[in-house]
Amino acid sequence: MTEQSGQGSARSQQDGAAGAPRFGRWSRRGVLGLAGTGVAGAAVGFVAGHASVDEAMPAVVDPATVVHPFHGEHQAGITTPVQEHLYFAAFDVRDTTTREDLVELLKAWTEAAERLTRGLEVTEDGAVDGPVLLPPDDTGEAQDMGAHALTVTFGFGPSLFTGEKGKRLGIADRRPAELKKLPLFAFDLLEDPISDGDLCIQACADDPQVAMHAIRNLSRIGFGTVRVRWTQLGFGKTASTDRTTPTPRNLFGFKDGTANVMADETAALEEQVWVPDDATPAWMAGGSYMVTRKIMMTIESWDRASLAEQQRVIGRDKGEGAPLSGGLEFTDPVFAAKNEDGSLAIDVDSHVRLAHPEMNNGTRMLRRGYNFVEGNNALGQLSAGLFFICFQRDPQQFIDIQNNLRGDLLNEYIRHVGSALFAVPAGTAEGEYVGQRLFG
Amino acid sequence: MTEQSGQGSARSQQDGAAGAPRFGRWSRRGVLGLAGTGVAGAAVGFVAGHASVDEAMPAVVDPATVVHPFHGEHQAGITTPVQEHLYFAAFDVRDTTTREDLVELLKAWTEAAERLTRGLEVTEDGAVDGPVLLPPDDTGEAQDMGAHALTVTFGFGPSLFTGEKGKRLGIADRRPAELKKLPLFAFDLLEDPISDGDLCIQACADDPQVAMHAIRNLSRIGFGTVRVRWTQLGFGKTASTDRTTPTPRNLFGFKDGTANVMADETAALEEQVWVPDDATPAWMAGGSYMVTRKIMMTIESWDRASLAEQQRVIGRDKGEGAPLSGGLEFTDPVFAAKNEDGSLAIDVDSHVRLAHPEMNNGTRMLRRGYNFVEGNNALGQLSAGLFFICFQRDPQQFIDIQNNLRGDLLNEYIRHVGSALFAVPAGTAEGEYVGQRLFG
Ligand code: HEM
Ligand code: HEM
Repeated sequence: MTEQSGQGSARSQQDGAAGAPRFGRWSRRGVLGLAGTGVAGAAVGFVAGHASVDEAMPAVVDPATVVHPFHGEHQAGITTPVQEHLYFAAFDVRDTTTREDLVELLKAWTEAAERLTRGLEVTEDGAVDGPVLLPPDDTGEAQDMGAHALTVTFGFGPSLFTGEKGKRLGIADRRPAELKKLPLFAFDLLEDPISDGDLCIQACADDPQVAMHAIRNLSRIGFGTVRVRWTQLGFGKTASTDRTTPTPRNLFGFKDGTANVMADETAALEEQVWVPDDATPAWMAGGSYMVTRKIMMTIESWDRASLAEQQRVIGRDKGEGAPLSGGLEFTDPVFAAKNEDGSLAIDVDSHVRLAHPEMNNGTRMLRRGYNFVEGNNALGQLSAGLFFICFQRDPQQFIDIQNNLRGDLLNEYIRHVGSALFAVPAGTAEGEYVGQRLFG
Repeated sequence: MTEQSGQGSARSQQDGAAGAPRFGRWSRRGVLGLAGTGVAGAAVGFVAGHASVDEAMPAVVDPATVVHPFHGEHQAGITTPVQEHLYFAAFDVRDTTTREDLVELLKAWTEAAERLTRGLEVTEDGAVDGPVLLPPDDTGEAQDMGAHALTVTFGFGPSLFTGEKGKRLGIADRRPAELKKLPLFAFDLLEDPISDGDLCIQACADDPQVAMHAIRNLSRIGFGTVRVRWTQLGFGKTASTDRTTPTPRNLFGFKDGTANVMADETAALEEQVWVPDDATPAWMAGGSYMVTRKIMMTIESWDRASLAEQQRVIGRDKGEGAPLSGGLEFTDPVFAAKNEDGSLAIDVDSHVRLAHPEMNNGTRMLRRGYNFVEGNNALGQLSAGLFFICFQRDPQQFIDIQNNLRGDLLNEYIRHVGSALFAVPAGTAEGEYVGQRLFG
């Protein structure tokens, strides 16, 4: 027996002002596709039992059937509405891999990824239609499940271009000057095996098995040419790129993504996220640089901090997500605002102040991170954190902001343990393969 | 821009015979609650764009609002329709914990779990309504998210009753004879830190953050009285207990749960799953024994096996899930059936034959396991498998079947690394706390 809970989000009612369709009691999880997000096809009429019908109600679609086209001007998985689950893999090219091998792989990956994002098996034969005496082409665990909004995003790490490898692959002179190993920042405690990589694939989907299936099958195709260097699972997006769904919360319980670069901020995307058309080298035009940071969060210490301390550290209030200078979630922070006792309402060392464009020469980034939980350590403490992902047209944007976070109050509660930078080329046209402009 | 994929599951059309509501192109994930599953409240009318309206269409509900009552004859989370995500924790009682401390904790856990399963914060003050100079009662990451079908199921391990601890807690003489450490089985490679435990909590929900939030907050309440021994995350249920949703697939790509004890098999539940009313000790009446086994699956070896070999190992075909003796998914296997060449259609050492009640004196179990993926090892291989959970009225049912699986062809591809047994008492009445019949 099940029943409906009476829980509604008061906050989502206030968002009308931000240009979002209004929706009352629906999940923040976005499993119910909204008409406003541009979902086409068999959108489905929707009449709520409790809500009055004259409130504009969203159309619902079966989340399993949501498909984001693989080909396009930019790769999907950057401004795409953030899905619920991440499976990320970094690969290294094998010592025996030639330029031709790698190009073959990129062609095979493109073809497979395009099929997977349509909810299809990795080949025509797939999981069960091939010869029974051979291993199936597709591993089968996502059979009949649908696309679940899967996106597959490819990137190239600095190490692909440098040293003997870059020469062998014939791309030593094609490395963008910006594409180099990220510097070691204050407090970094990086673990080599979970940092860097020659290539990466970011798979995001609203179902974890679909994301996992994509990486598993693409890894399988790469067998012999590349080897998996590290992988990362994530759940419960910690950022949104659209204002049509309530802002998600991270594992510190705060809304995360409020001041993110949103998919509809066309000007900001051009200025902050997409590599311009006159880029050097030209193959990166329309692409973006992706930074990943595995950040452990010391959950138990955080949970023992007072609400006041937590809010001081972030610079926003925990319930509404409003800046401590007042207003609602989407009100701009006023860093000069003072409390009655004359102290600053937003601490000078709070995370949002130090990360804010005002303190960073107007620099912004598109964040697209995920929570992770990896069991507990020997002390019984949670091994958990944020797999931070951000996109910018120049890695220097991340570097500058991260440097500015040196005095961040948040540093007492977090520890960066993994780090990587990838050049994410522009999207592909039909018939083109990922990286064709680099290798072609 | 998004579009709808045309993917539909042909197989789900065949299920009408099994008494399930018919549904064509909907997710196997059960995120759209079906009227047939007993979801009450604000069920919502539903009209598909593609399907013709005279086909009986399911009503959809927002998955966030699905609530399973905490109190009841049996604990929720056993016959409850299997949710998409698991967070499991085993705890040990601290050396300083008295009987009174533990009873207090069980009362606090009951109260908190009951609130959480209604989608509420852990206390009235919750995440943001308490005094700002104190740490909040609730960690806040599931704020406003709804219940997402959360169930919280408590169990007691053998070690709670034995040795000095059992004496201190005053329950040394209340241990059921059946409740003892599981034997070491053939091929077991158990790791102590992820086996056993004095107490356990199984949290299942259709959203991972909700399940995680439940265990995190219950662990927090237990601080000082118990410590976390081990935890396990799981996603993508590998069994179903109802036939209203398509059978899920495990990481070997096979349908899993086809021959499970289903929630509507009242007689089988009484015979196989629930401890009878005249049980000794009486406090276990209406309860069940839960076995958990962490089973690593050597994905890469499996993926290199031919389709024929994979099907021989399981004893069913991979596409439909039908027994190799023929028919459809829910057709009974015929173990005497032969191929044209005179060989047995279902290998004598296949998993389903050895696990089938016919080979086990009619013994069955209710399976409720989850997939897990924990990154990759140094060789780049997936660290993944099945967190097997089953419920039975007597642990001997599991022991007998597991012993019978000694010659299982599947053993070449799996490795048991974690093991635990817990006595799961009956459900609570309102005002009662979990374990009251044990401690009362
Ligand atoms: C575990 C680590 C982190 C946590 C828990 C965290 C949390 C938050 C929260 C709660 C907000 C306020 C809501 C919002 O606008 O999204 C925020 C804002 C922001 N964070 Fe973080 N963050 C983390 C790491 C980082 C890192 C590593 C960077 C980049 C170097 C970063 C950059 C930003 C930016 C740019 C903003 C928006 C600031 C504004 O314009 O107001 N964060 N973060
Ligand atoms: C990674 C390990 C395992 C995998 C991949 C696996 C997979 C499967 C599959 C694909 C089926 C057929 C579909 C179905 O009826 O559910 C099945 C059936 C079954 N499995 Fe497993 N299984 C595993 C471990 C176990 C263990 C440890 C046990 C209990 C000791 C078990 C007991 C059963 C039972 C009782 C059935 C139903 C047999 C029947 O009545 O036809 N399985 N399993």
